[in-house]
Amino acid sequence: MPKVRLAMAQTNPVVGDISANLNECFDVVVAAAAQGANLVLFGEMNATGYPIEDLATRHAFVEAAEQAIDEFAQRLAANGLAQMHVIIGHPAIAPAQDQDHWAIAQNCASVIHGGKVVGRYAKHHLPNYSVFDEYRVFVPGNDLLSFEIEGVRCSVLICEDIWQDGGPVAQLENSGTELLLVLNGSPFEVGKQHIREELVLRIANRYKTAVAYVNLVGGQDDLVFDGNSMLVDSKGNFVQRLSGFKSEFKISNLDSADSVVSIDAGSQQESELSQVWQALVLGLGDYVNKNGFKSVVLGLSGGIDSAVCAALAVDALGSGRVFGVSLPSKYSSDHSKSDAFDLAERLKIEIRTEAIADIVDVAERQLGLDGLAAENLQARVRGVILMALSNAEGHLTLTTGNKTELAVGYSTIYGDSVGGYAPIKDVAKTLVWDLARWRNQQALGLGTTPPIPENSINKTPSAELRPGQVDQDSLPEYDQLDRMLELYIDERMSRRQIIDAGFDAETVDKVIGLVDRSEWKRRQGAIGPKITGMAFGRDRRMPITNRFRQP
Amino acid sequence: MPKVRLAMAQTNPVVGDISANLNECFDVVVAAAAQGANLVLFGEMNATGYPIEDLATRHAFVEAAEQAIDEFAQRLAANGLAQMHVIIGHPAIAPAQDQDHWAIAQNCASVIHGGKVVGRYAKHHLPNYSVFDEYRVFVPGNDLLSFEIEGVRCSVLICEDIWQDGGPVAQLENSGTELLLVLNGSPFEVGKQHIREELVLRIANRYKTAVAYVNLVGGQDDLVFDGNSMLVDSKGNFVQRLSGFKSEFKISNLDSADSVVSIDAGSQQESELSQVWQALVLGLGDYVNKNGFKSVVLGLSGGIDSAVCAALAVDALGSGRVFGVSLPSKYSSDHSKSDAFDLAERLKIEIRTEAIADIVDVAERQLGLDGLAAENLQARVRGVILMALSNAEGHLTLTTGNKTELAVGYSTIYGDSVGGYAPIKDVAKTLVWDLARWRNQQALGLGTTPPIPENSINKTPSAELRPGQVDQDSLPEYDQLDRMLELYIDERMSRRQIIDAGFDAETVDKVIGLVDRSEWKRRQGAIGPKITGMAFGRDRRMPITNRFRQP
Repeated sequence: MPKVRLAMAQTNPVVGDISANLNECFDVVVAAAAQGANLVLFGEMNATGYPIEDLATRHAFVEAAEQAIDEFAQRLAANGLAQMHVIIGHPAIAPAQDQDHWAIAQNCASVIHGGKVVGRYAKHHLPNYSVFDEYRVFVPGNDLLSFEIEGVRCSVLICEDIWQDGGPVAQLENSGTELLLVLNGSPFEVGKQHIREELVLRIANRYKTAVAYVNLVGGQDDLVFDGNSMLVDSKGNFVQRLSGFKSEFKISNLDSADSVVSIDAGSQQESELSQVWQALVLGLGDYVNKNGFKSVVLGLSGGIDSAVCAALAVDALGSGRVFGVSLPSKYSSDHSKSDAFDLAERLKIEIRTEAIADIVDVAERQLGLDGLAAENLQARVRGVILMALSNAEGHLTLTTGNKTELAVGYSTIYGDSVGGYAPIKDVAKTLVWDLARWRNQQALGLGTTPPIPENSINKTPSAELRPGQVDQDSLPEYDQLDRMLELYIDERMSRRQIIDAGFDAETVDKVIGLVDRSEWKRRQGAIGPKITGMAFGRDRRMPITNRFRQP
Repeated sequence: MPKVRLAMAQTNPVVGDISANLNECFDVVVAAAAQGANLVLFGEMNATGYPIEDLATRHAFVEAAEQAIDEFAQRLAANGLAQMHVIIGHPAIAPAQDQDHWAIAQNCASVIHGGKVVGRYAKHHLPNYSVFDEYRVFVPGNDLLSFEIEGVRCSVLICEDIWQDGGPVAQLENSGTELLLVLNGSPFEVGKQHIREELVLRIANRYKTAVAYVNLVGGQDDLVFDGNSMLVDSKGNFVQRLSGFKSEFKISNLDSADSVVSIDAGSQQESELSQVWQALVLGLGDYVNKNGFKSVVLGLSGGIDSAVCAALAVDALGSGRVFGVSLPSKYSSDHSKSDAFDLAERLKIEIRTEAIADIVDVAERQLGLDGLAAENLQARVRGVILMALSNAEGHLTLTTGNKTELAVGYSTIYGDSVGGYAPIKDVAKTLVWDLARWRNQQALGLGTTPPIPENSINKTPSAELRPGQVDQDSLPEYDQLDRMLELYIDERMSRRQIIDAGFDAETVDKVIGLVDRSEWKRRQGAIGPKITGMAFGRDRRMPITNRFRQP
C-alpha cells in the first residue's frame, strides 16, 4: 500500500448547478475509492462552476455553495467514505472584517475528511487582468493550509497563487511539503500548456515537492477549460498527464516527493490545430447544452467560415441537431449554393433554401436604398430569417464571423452578426483555413468523409453583397492583415512599432482605424470561445468613445 | 491679496483627444489668471478623458499623455503663466519595478509650476468594483504629495483615495495641510451628491483642512460625470458649489484652512428629476457629438419610452438633428400614429411614416410564421428599416428600451433593440413616466410647449405586436415590478428576502427567472447612461450560462 493514493479529477461543472456538480464529484469519489484512492483532488471552484463573476457578490449564492459543501461532506461519510480526503473548490463567505461593500466571498478549497470540512484555504492572489475580475468579486486569503496523510505533508494552493513569486509559494520552503495540491481554473489558450508545464516543473524543483495540478474541463460562456491536468515528482519527472478537453480522473501512488508512480496510462499531447479544434467543439457544445438548447441553426453561404462553424457544430452536437439554411441573393454565385449543399451532404445535416430576394426587393423599393445601405439590407434580411427560424423552431442561432472580420468591422451589425454564440469569434481568418484543412486531413486519416468542401477552402473570399465583390477589394491580403492585427491587438504594439515591423504606413493606418472604429459593433456581438492571448470581449476593454490617433 | 486664489475647473474632456482637452485647460488657466488666480485645480484624468480602460495598458497612449503634459507646462510658461500652480490629471508610466505584465501606468496628478512638472502624485486606492476596473489597468501609488503656496500647505489626493479610511487620508494628520486638493472622476448616480458632500465635510472636520473637490463633467460611453464640484472650509462651511452637468470654473480666496471666501456665486442644488434629466441629456449629447454623429434617428411608437427619448434628444441636440419614424403595423392603434405625430409637432422634429406591413407580409408568407416568431418579425422589420435609414442618411440609431424592459427581456433582440445608444437604458419604467411629467411641468413653468403628449403618458402600455395586447398581460403592474427589480438587482436581495418584503412567491420566481434568462440579450445591448447604483452593463457582470435557482 502506498501512503498516498491520489485521484486527480478534472470535472466539467455547470455554473450555478451546485447539486448536479456535486453529484458528479460524488460519483468520482466513489469510483476513486473503489480503486483504493485515499485522496481526491478536484479543480478550482468545481462545486459551483467557474468563473461565477458577480454571483460571488450575492449572499444567497455563496451561502448555498457553502451549505452544499457541508452536505457533500456528510453524504460522503454516510456512504462509507469518511476516511477519504477530498479537496474541492467553492466560494465561501469571507470573514466579516475583510468584506468590503462589494466583495463578500473568497475563492476557497476545502479539505473534507471524516464527514466534515477539516481545513479551508482561500486563494491569496486574485487575477484581475485579461478575462479575470477576481479582485472585484473576491477577498484575498492570508493563511496557508497543509495537512498530513500517513505522514506525507500535503499543501493546498489555488491557480494564480503558483503564478506569483512570493506569497504562499515562497512559504513552501521548509514547510516539509511533499505533495503540493493545486486547484486550477485555467482557460485554454494556444500554446499555454507549455507555459503551465514549465511553471509546475520549476516549483517542483525549487521546493522539492511533487505537484498535482488539476484543471477544470468545459465551456463556460466565452472560456474553455481544457483539463490537461498533470502530476510531476520532485525530480521533475512527468508522472501523469490527463487528457485535454475531457472529464476524467486518474490514479497515482505517492510515498514521498520523489517516489511517485502513475497507475493509469497517461494521455498524449496533441497538435496545436487539434487542440484548437477540440477547444472550439467543447466551447460550442457546452454553451448549447448547458443553456438547454436542443439544436442550432446557421446560414450556410458556401464560404469557409460557415463551413467550419457547421463542421464544429456537428462534431459538438451530432448531425441531427444542426440545421443549415442557404440564403441566396441575386448576387450569390452558383457555387455559393452548390458548396453549401455539398457541405450539408458531407455533414449529413438538414439544409433548406430561403432566398432573400422577395423581402429585399420590397424593402429596397419601399426605402429607395442603394450602395452600402442596400448591401447591409441583404445581410439584415438574412438575420431576420435566421432569427425567425430560431424563434419558430427553438434553435440557437450561430453567427459565423471570424476574428479578422470582427477586428476590422467587416460585418453587418444585426445582419450576419445575429446569434447567441459565435463559434469562431477568436479564430483569425488564416487559422480558419488551417483548421479546415486539418479537419479534412484528420477525416481522411480516420477513413471518413472530409467535412469541408475543397471549393469552400480554395475559393476567393467574398461577401457577395454586390456583383463581383471580393474581400480583398477593401482589405489587405489576409496573411498580411492577420499579422498586423496580431501585432496591434495581441501584442499591443503601437502604430510606429507595426510600421517598423515592415508594414507600410498607409495600410497600418487603415487597419488600426478600422479596428478602433468597430468597437461599438464588437460590444454588441455574441460571445464565443477565447483561444488566444487576447480575445475580443472582456479580455480587451476599450472605450467606444475614443479619439486617440497614434502618432 | 489672499495667499491662495483658487480656480476650481470642471472640464469635459474627450477620451483620447489629448490636445483638444489640453487646449481647453489652457484656456481655463488663461481666464483664471486674468482673474488673479495662482492655483488651478482640474478633475481626475482630465488631460486624457476618463475612464480610459485598457488604453491605460498601451505604451503609446500613456507616453503620448505624459509628453503632452510636459508640453502643456512649457506652453503655460511661454505664455507668461509660469508662476501659476496647475494641478492636472493624467496617466503616466509606472516605475519599471512596479509594472506587472498587464498594468503599466498610474493614475496621476501633476503639479505644474515654472514651466515644468514639479510634483506628481499617483492614486493609491484603485476602485475595482461597480463600473471601475482600475486595479486591472493601473499600478497603485505609494507616496504623498504636498507643496506650499505663500506658506499655505496644499496636499493632493485622487478620488477613491478619500473614500477609503487609512491610506493617504490618514496621513493628512499632522501634515500641516490647510488645503486638500482632490481630483475626481465620479460618475453621476441618483442621490450620490449627498454622500459626496458628507464625505468631504467629514474629512474637512477630521483633518482641519479646507477641501477643494473637483469632479469631471460629461458623458463617456455609459458614464455621465456631473461636475457638482465643491469647496468647504475646515469648519465645515460650504464655501463654493459649481454647477451640475456644465463645464465651468469658479474662484475662491484662501488664507488658511478656516479662512476661505468664494468670489463667484455658487450654484443651486436641483431636484432629483431635474438632475436625472440633465444627466440623460448630457450622456446622449456627448455620445453623439464625441463620436462625430450629425444626427439621430429613432422609431416613434406613440408610447412613453420613445417620446421621452425623442424629447431628450431634442434637449441634447436641437430639433434639426433628430429624425423620427412612425413604423405602424396592422396592429398599430390610431393613437399610436397620431401620438407620434403630436410628439413630432411639439418637438418640431421631422417625422416620416414607414409602414412595415409589406415587408412583414412577404417574410411571414415566405417563412410561414405565427405566434412569437411573427411578433418578433414585426419588431425586426422595424429594426431593419431604422438601420437602413441610419446607413443611408448617416444618423446614429437610438434604441428606446427602458431598464424595466431590459431587466425582464421584454424586447426583441435585433428588433426594437437595434441602435448604438440607449438613452433610457438605466431608467425604470415608473421613472420614465415621472420624467415625462417633470419635463412637461418644467416646460409649462418656462412658458413653452410641453414636449410629451399627455396621451403618451396616460395610455396603457402596449407593444402592439398582436391585437389588444398590453404589457400587463404578461408582466406584473409596473410599480410592483420596478420595486421587485430594485430589490433583486440594485439591492442584490435573495428570492427569500424579496418574498419577505411582501411580494408573492410565484411573482417573485417569475420575475427573477425573466431577469436571469435575459442575460444573453442584455450582453448584446447598446450602451446607455448609468444613473443608478446598479446599471446593466459593466456594473453588473453575470454569467450567461448560469443554472443557479434560488432556494
